[in-house]
Amino acid sequence: MTALEQLIEALRRLPGVGQKSAQRMAYHLLQHDRPGADALAHALQQATHSVRHCERCYTFSESPLCPICQDSRRDARLLCVVETPADQAAMERTASYHGYYFVLQGRISPLDGVGTREIGVEPLLARAADGQVEEVILATSFTAEGEATAHVLAEALRVRGLRSTRLARGVPVGSELEYVDLGTIAHALVDRRAT
Amino acid sequence: MTALEQLIEALRRLPGVGQKSAQRMAYHLLQHDRPGADALAHALQQATHSVRHCERCYTFSESPLCPICQDSRRDARLLCVVETPADQAAMERTASYHGYYFVLQGRISPLDGVGTREIGVEPLLARAADGQVEEVILATSFTAEGEATAHVLAEALRVRGLRSTRLARGVPVGSELEYVDLGTIAHALVDRRAT
Repeated sequence: MTALEQLIEALRRLPGVGQKSAQRMAYHLLQHDRPGADALAHALQQATHSVRHCERCYTFSESPLCPICQDSRRDARLLCVVETPADQAAMERTASYHGYYFVLQGRISPLDGVGTREIGVEPLLARAADGQVEEVILATSFTAEGEATAHVLAEALRVRGLRSTRLARGVPVGSELEYVDLGTIAHALVDRRAT
Repeated sequence: MTALEQLIEALRRLPGVGQKSAQRMAYHLLQHDRPGADALAHALQQATHSVRHCERCYTFSESPLCPICQDSRRDARLLCVVETPADQAAMERTASYHGYYFVLQGRISPLDGVGTREIGVEPLLARAADGQVEEVILATSFTAEGEATAHVLAEALRVRGLRSTRLARGVPVGSELEYVDLGTIAHALVDRRAT
């Protein structure tokens, strides 16, 4: 394989990148943006070298404890469980949550051999039993696997006498009812709240 | 900026990659495919280091002359002009062309300050005047800029007494006439050929 072919191969490993895009990226970098290629190579090495997981919440962190876990002004009574660091970042961008986080290693997916051990349920249970946490907010995805994960976690927390809640399901903000899928409307009806 | 943010920034420079995709790629590499990140960093360095331009046709090459220019069994009477190494690769995949190539540095685009000098028209004219080339096939894109480039090249070649041709415009293979755009049908009608 030539260096160009190897580059295309390596780019194809990125999520959402097929043969055509990988080729376009490689040609672009070599023809028009060699400094960009150097910058990317450097950033990749830097990131794989220095980005580790927070010892407490398991999100990405360059220090043993991530900035959020280090922040003592957060509400220690709340612990929000998400599937990935990306989900945590989305929660943070809402600027409406001020507790701490626990980042799972994905979600339970029996078909892929991913169970409670793989996603880190034990560390979560230990973290939630620190005596300060009063409510565990389950913010896993609203997919079949995310729901199953939330269910398993809720059970495990209940057994240990810990209270858990789940993000509300409902009609997305800004949507016209006509275009919302029926399952979502049905859930929004069941979970309707007093005005 | 953290190492993670720097990685997202660097990924955003790839064509077709916005903030969201860059974030997804970075999270994926760090969470699920660190060997992939290392492989990509290595391939980028290898490629920027060893991939240069062929001295004769200006396509990507790891040797002074690319494999095609080194191949003496090719038809030296034909020279195909394309805009990019990617276009050349597409021509090669058709397996129906057996002459040599000349790869321009893009196409003329006055609005972006890209003129005949920038795309390398002089080296092309020198290459085409080697005494062996009998026909220069203009295979630039069938866009406004590609057509303009072909027009300029055809004129410059004509002045030097060199014959040039252009790829045929017409209905794409496999299309139903109903769904082909009108400009294409009009061109196919003008360029109709005897059966």
